[in-house]
Amino acid sequence: MKLDLRAIKPAVFRALEEDIGFADITTSSIVPGEQTGKGVLFFKEPGILAGLQVAELVFVTLDPSLKTIPRAKDGEAVAAGQAVLEVEGSLQSILTAERVALNFLQRMSGIATRTARFVELVRYYNAKISDTRKTTPGMRPLEKYAITVGGGRNHRFGLFDAVVIKDNHIRIAGGIKEAIMKARHQIPHTTKVEVEVNSMERIEEALEVKADIILLDNMSPEAIREAVDLIAGRAITEVSGDVTEETIVDYAKTGVDYITVGALTSAARWLDISLELQTGDQQ
Amino acid sequence: MKLDLRAIKPAVFRALEEDIGFADITTSSIVPGEQTGKGVLFFKEPGILAGLQVAELVFVTLDPSLKTIPRAKDGEAVAAGQAVLEVEGSLQSILTAERVALNFLQRMSGIATRTARFVELVRYYNAKISDTRKTTPGMRPLEKYAITVGGGRNHRFGLFDAVVIKDNHIRIAGGIKEAIMKARHQIPHTTKVEVEVNSMERIEEALEVKADIILLDNMSPEAIREAVDLIAGRAITEVSGDVTEETIVDYAKTGVDYITVGALTSAARWLDISLELQTGDQQ
Amino acid sequence: MKLDLRAIKPAVFRALEEDIGFADITTSSIVPGEQTGKGVLFFKEPGILAGLQVAELVFVTLDPSLKTIPRAKDGEAVAAGQAVLEVEGSLQSILTAERVALNFLQRMSGIATRTARFVELVRYYNAKISDTRKTTPGMRPLEKYAITVGGGRNHRFGLFDAVVIKDNHIRIAGGIKEAIMKARHQIPHTTKVEVEVNSMERIEEALEVKADIILLDNMSPEAIREAVDLIAGRAITEVSGDVTEETIVDYAKTGVDYITVGALTSAARWLDISLELQTGDQQ
Amino acid sequence: MKLDLRAIKPAVFRALEEDIGFADITTSSIVPGEQTGKGVLFFKEPGILAGLQVAELVFVTLDPSLKTIPRAKDGEAVAAGQAVLEVEGSLQSILTAERVALNFLQRMSGIATRTARFVELVRYYNAKISDTRKTTPGMRPLEKYAITVGGGRNHRFGLFDAVVIKDNHIRIAGGIKEAIMKARHQIPHTTKVEVEVNSMERIEEALEVKADIILLDNMSPEAIREAVDLIAGRAITEVSGDVTEETIVDYAKTGVDYITVGALTSAARWLDISLELQTGDQQ
Amino acid sequence: MKLDLRAIKPAVFRALEEDIGFADITTSSIVPGEQTGKGVLFFKEPGILAGLQVAELVFVTLDPSLKTIPRAKDGEAVAAGQAVLEVEGSLQSILTAERVALNFLQRMSGIATRTARFVELVRYYNAKISDTRKTTPGMRPLEKYAITVGGGRNHRFGLFDAVVIKDNHIRIAGGIKEAIMKARHQIPHTTKVEVEVNSMERIEEALEVKADIILLDNMSPEAIREAVDLIAGRAITEVSGDVTEETIVDYAKTGVDYITVGALTSAARWLDISLELQTGDQQ
Amino acid sequence: MKLDLRAIKPAVFRALEEDIGFADITTSSIVPGEQTGKGVLFFKEPGILAGLQVAELVFVTLDPSLKTIPRAKDGEAVAAGQAVLEVEGSLQSILTAERVALNFLQRMSGIATRTARFVELVRYYNAKISDTRKTTPGMRPLEKYAITVGGGRNHRFGLFDAVVIKDNHIRIAGGIKEAIMKARHQIPHTTKVEVEVNSMERIEEALEVKADIILLDNMSPEAIREAVDLIAGRAITEVSGDVTEETIVDYAKTGVDYITVGALTSAARWLDISLELQTGDQQ
Repeated sequence: MKLDLRAIKPAVFRALEEDIGFADITTSSIVPGEQTGKGVLFFKEPGILAGLQVAELVFVTLDPSLKTIPRAKDGEAVAAGQAVLEVEGSLQSILTAERVALNFLQRMSGIATRTARFVELVRYYNAKISDTRKTTPGMRPLEKYAITVGGGRNHRFGLFDAVVIKDNHIRIAGGIKEAIMKARHQIPHTTKVEVEVNSMERIEEALEVKADIILLDNMSPEAIREAVDLIAGRAITEVSGDVTEETIVDYAKTGVDYITVGALTSAARWLDISLELQTGDQQ
Repeated sequence: MKLDLRAIKPAVFRALEEDIGFADITTSSIVPGEQTGKGVLFFKEPGILAGLQVAELVFVTLDPSLKTIPRAKDGEAVAAGQAVLEVEGSLQSILTAERVALNFLQRMSGIATRTARFVELVRYYNAKISDTRKTTPGMRPLEKYAITVGGGRNHRFGLFDAVVIKDNHIRIAGGIKEAIMKARHQIPHTTKVEVEVNSMERIEEALEVKADIILLDNMSPEAIREAVDLIAGRAITEVSGDVTEETIVDYAKTGVDYITVGALTSAARWLDISLELQTGDQQ
Repeated sequence: MKLDLRAIKPAVFRALEEDIGFADITTSSIVPGEQTGKGVLFFKEPGILAGLQVAELVFVTLDPSLKTIPRAKDGEAVAAGQAVLEVEGSLQSILTAERVALNFLQRMSGIATRTARFVELVRYYNAKISDTRKTTPGMRPLEKYAITVGGGRNHRFGLFDAVVIKDNHIRIAGGIKEAIMKARHQIPHTTKVEVEVNSMERIEEALEVKADIILLDNMSPEAIREAVDLIAGRAITEVSGDVTEETIVDYAKTGVDYITVGALTSAARWLDISLELQTGDQQ
Repeated sequence: MKLDLRAIKPAVFRALEEDIGFADITTSSIVPGEQTGKGVLFFKEPGILAGLQVAELVFVTLDPSLKTIPRAKDGEAVAAGQAVLEVEGSLQSILTAERVALNFLQRMSGIATRTARFVELVRYYNAKISDTRKTTPGMRPLEKYAITVGGGRNHRFGLFDAVVIKDNHIRIAGGIKEAIMKARHQIPHTTKVEVEVNSMERIEEALEVKADIILLDNMSPEAIREAVDLIAGRAITEVSGDVTEETIVDYAKTGVDYITVGALTSAARWLDISLELQTGDQQ
Repeated sequence: MKLDLRAIKPAVFRALEEDIGFADITTSSIVPGEQTGKGVLFFKEPGILAGLQVAELVFVTLDPSLKTIPRAKDGEAVAAGQAVLEVEGSLQSILTAERVALNFLQRMSGIATRTARFVELVRYYNAKISDTRKTTPGMRPLEKYAITVGGGRNHRFGLFDAVVIKDNHIRIAGGIKEAIMKARHQIPHTTKVEVEVNSMERIEEALEVKADIILLDNMSPEAIREAVDLIAGRAITEVSGDVTEETIVDYAKTGVDYITVGALTSAARWLDISLELQTGDQQ
Repeated sequence: MKLDLRAIKPAVFRALEEDIGFADITTSSIVPGEQTGKGVLFFKEPGILAGLQVAELVFVTLDPSLKTIPRAKDGEAVAAGQAVLEVEGSLQSILTAERVALNFLQRMSGIATRTARFVELVRYYNAKISDTRKTTPGMRPLEKYAITVGGGRNHRFGLFDAVVIKDNHIRIAGGIKEAIMKARHQIPHTTKVEVEVNSMERIEEALEVKADIILLDNMSPEAIREAVDLIAGRAITEVSGDVTEETIVDYAKTGVDYITVGALTSAARWLDISLELQTGDQQ
């Protein structure tokens, strides 16, 4: 996924507003407006960098005269102590924007780092790691982007860009075929249909009406392997359920195409990143 | 902290928009608009509930005809399997709002649960657990509220409601006294001044100009104890730095008033919470 | 497509603001605030009704105390002179909202009516009529909905919910296969890929990399027939180009799955619809 | 009317957001961010150009680094095949903005072209062609501007900038004089009052209370001529009703000052305009 | 002028947000959410009431469950000590909204009171008192409405609803006639043209091209009288300049139609109005 | 207080929109777009300048190509006739932005000028002049900033950044101690608590629970002196009530720390400031 900075500007603007309110009363009182210097963002623990452009956007949104100099790239494995971004210009602006820039960068790099661990675990298998819609409200494009930075793949972005028929839908519609038919009647022909199944019988039904993707939910690795054999390439296969770092290889070995992992976002710890200031006289 | 629902409506509205876009193409195609039923949100693991009113707000913002029935209260220790909220009305609306409601509730309950663990550890000491400004952009009031639900205390809400003079400010101002004086000259007399120190000498200076709060940053428990004795109630004392579940008791034993813990938000895992649907014909 | 009224509220709100500004200086000056009555919206020429709920939303957005009584349903063929909606309540509010309600209804019913003519022409063939992204800025969900009311099908909603690789993309990528591969690497596996072709050779390439939809652009009916035979169900087929009421049957006869027609929106005349007022004393 | 670009920026911004959503997943995946080139917008059928600055604004709003070079001016009669705008810079940006820029330009040029036909028909008469409030919701300033580009004149912009007393108002007020008096009591003295009449008797009443404009609604050309003679310059005269390209000259011959024509907007077909790409290597 | 509450809702919403921010930390901490009572707004000095509905809107915007009971009407002369509005319901909500409600009411009643004094001074003359565009940014509809409550008349609402040609425009255009002609060519025929003059010669020119309103700027009462005689009803006459409570009668005696007074808004003192609380146990 | 221009941009944008609407129909019709010149803002009466950067922001927000040249500084005592700002560039833009720029500048300079008079009166005493929350809705940061420009001090910015416990809160809580305790339990330790008292007994209570600030409300100068002696530096002292230019020195003599004066904003007359245009040919 490419990050569309245009689309995230409002989130950056709101984040600054949330933190600053009517003024940064500490910095604006103490730091002279004309004093300049340099801030350096660096990692305090090793991890995968994600969100560098977002951090840059925070600084230049607050103060367009700030100059940002990237020292690393999204997706790079960064060592503890390594600098990733320099910001030059008004010390007032750098200090006022610091926390918001770090909040974005720490959350996003935390997700990318955790995703990379899962991706590494399955690298010898066909399976790809995919995300879910378990994202912090207001942060979806940023968190989904961080997933891809860590080597993961995106699932649908929201309720609007793909049909995913779950157990509740099937029950209400009165069957898999009925649910898929109803959806097909309403949606564009440019939209895929995914359907959740938990038995071999339902897989047959899904294949009959040509579901594009079959989601094998809460099935054992053995059952999944059997399902993958049955589907035999007639639909994309996807697995979800109790996937952890301990169990993921078992799932990957089944030959499934995608493993969706909610924990990429819901259990990701923020990465420890800091800003160090170099004031004018030190340079 | 009391939650001001008025202030979080925009965040709820944006979260729904982010997930739904122009339409929930699955549910609107398959579930008849007139079909009603009940959804039950329940915990899949034990934890502290936080954000129930936010989850309710998500449902009624999407569809004001939905009826929400709380089955627990924020702050309650909820067991695995226990229901916390029922939602009655249009099945379409319940299914469309489900993910957004859960995303808020899981994040907030995760923070409250983690905070409660820290609070429990220091319950026999004077020290209170306080949060930081390390909150997900756009979620600050909700995450700060969740902290208090877990028994923690809030630090300032943003850069606008208290002065916190850090090492960089002191260096730029040319000293603690200079920094505090400059700030006092600009800010309302209704605003407190906190100052970060890392030596006994600086504490004396801070006390001379009557800092309201002295932040002992990255000092050993021994040094902190000495500092607390020196300050002797002339200012509120606060500790920050390398605080973990393992080290916090050592800090609490120093007699300090507040221990700020960034991990309350930055290392909180989302709690596992689900929605189960009861369709009309099952009732 | 189901209309999600939640998503169109901002457009309705802005439309009222655009027309009313700080006040309807005529009606607020002349019509007493407490006077009530009934307005009836009726067709002045025969056509397909589309947008009734939008017209209702306009009235109740301006004044929540207005009561709307539908007398027809979207998709219905309405005769000249036939009423489609009654609005009861404050005469001031009815008169102030009148023009905006009609502007939505006339544009949407005009599109549905024109679409129905195209749909009728191909009703004995496999081909379905599909829309394009040629919609009035700010009106896309409403115009796309009107298409489906007239019996047409939607193509993708925007640049975000399906990949459509056109000639320019192919040239830049250096070939059909390269373009499709690059896209697949970035997009969710829940997203379809459509590719535009204009020769049999390119169709083969598209099939090799399993394009979901093949768009036959600016080809003669003969060439299209040949292409449909070649594809033989391995991808959805779609035709675009110089499609008019005169030529559409020739295209439909080729056996293609979808014919996209920009004129559904770009050449649709507004339907003639009026509001007639029944003041209190006349009732 | 001069176009105030400042006032239409929000509409341009929303149009881009509506089409692009979180990303143009096709172009951002396939076209390298650094590749540059040129796009040329050209007419595929003859017509009057309107909205060139809006199209330019679309491109530079999406990407401020794009350079636009106008090759024609609003109001110019453009031949089929003639270029009207060149855009240079990032190919990604040009392709992503293409459809939105065209949607504005095609709608606006369609209106200007249709208006020019009406204006041409009455060019030997006193009558001027005027528009109505039948504009696409959200597009009023742009559509009203396009009218003037085609040689037409604007009527009031909304319910706020002039009083127009219609039959319903007169009935509710209990007479023309009563209606005008009530309005005059509330409105600024800087605001004109127009009143709709359909009989000679009512014209006398309107003149007695010095209506600024008299709207002769649904009257025959003969009756209009008589009315114009009666009014004799004491008020501006305006005609509305069943005005088509066939009947307009009959109305113009009556000596009336303004003929308002709803069809300028409601029956205008979009003009056929395209963008052709010249990639870097072709230049 | 009738107040359009719909149009001022955003201003009320922003005013509450500006004052409350993330929470009213005093009241939400101390006053139990379920405690109810009554607040009474009363005048502490005599004056003209204006803005009662705005104050009501503030309370119900913050808390839709509050019940407001007007005890007076806009335009009424209220005595010191007299109640004008009662608010019943949650004490928390009443206390939190209090200041914002009063800020609107005090400013608006102050303007109405001051306007009434000017109106009273000229009541035996033909001249009406008119306002200007000197209004507090963001408050224009409210301040212009307050003017009419005090018996004044509105001038144009903004730069969009009437043409006012001032000295600078005339100089740039090269003369009064040129300026008026240029404007007439661009504006709707539904819009009036006012022109500023300061000599008899220029009045003749203005009359020749039929200016609707002639603004006599900075002229002595004698010169104005002469001008009014010259114009002789062929245009509306208006006076502006150094108008105070001391000089206004001299201007009124000249026979002019309108006297515009910037001081209605720029020199209006807020009226002293308070809220008194009656808690539940006192009732 | 430092003015954070970022935070006031929305207010400036809305003010321009409020005044200009869809277009400045006078200036855009008459003044050629390419004509340039210079506008000079100058004082027509002596006073303290406040808001210069806001006026500059108005001009460059409307038209980023305008160049502003400050000729004075906020806080400066400006003589009648003295220029404070020059604006160079498009005459159209200068004329269109003029009124909005002046409205901000006149209101803000009026407040600063009035504040300076109060500050001057107490300059030989310990007491500082402080503002209140009586600010025009939507203008709080600007009016509070103008207070400090005039030499006054700010009280809290809103209900969110300090606790102020008034008589109503005390009654509802059941006493001063109860009220303060309840508040302390909810608020951050970084927030001050002020409490209103009107008797010596209550002062003792307030001191017992360590109120940060004691507000002596509606007490005589004698009582205030006694209270100040009693408090003896154990809390900041503040006075409010019937403070006028006549009575303020009596209050200042009591030794109190702060005197809050609502009249700084509620009784401030706008300062008389004008823009004079120098057209291109005159330069």
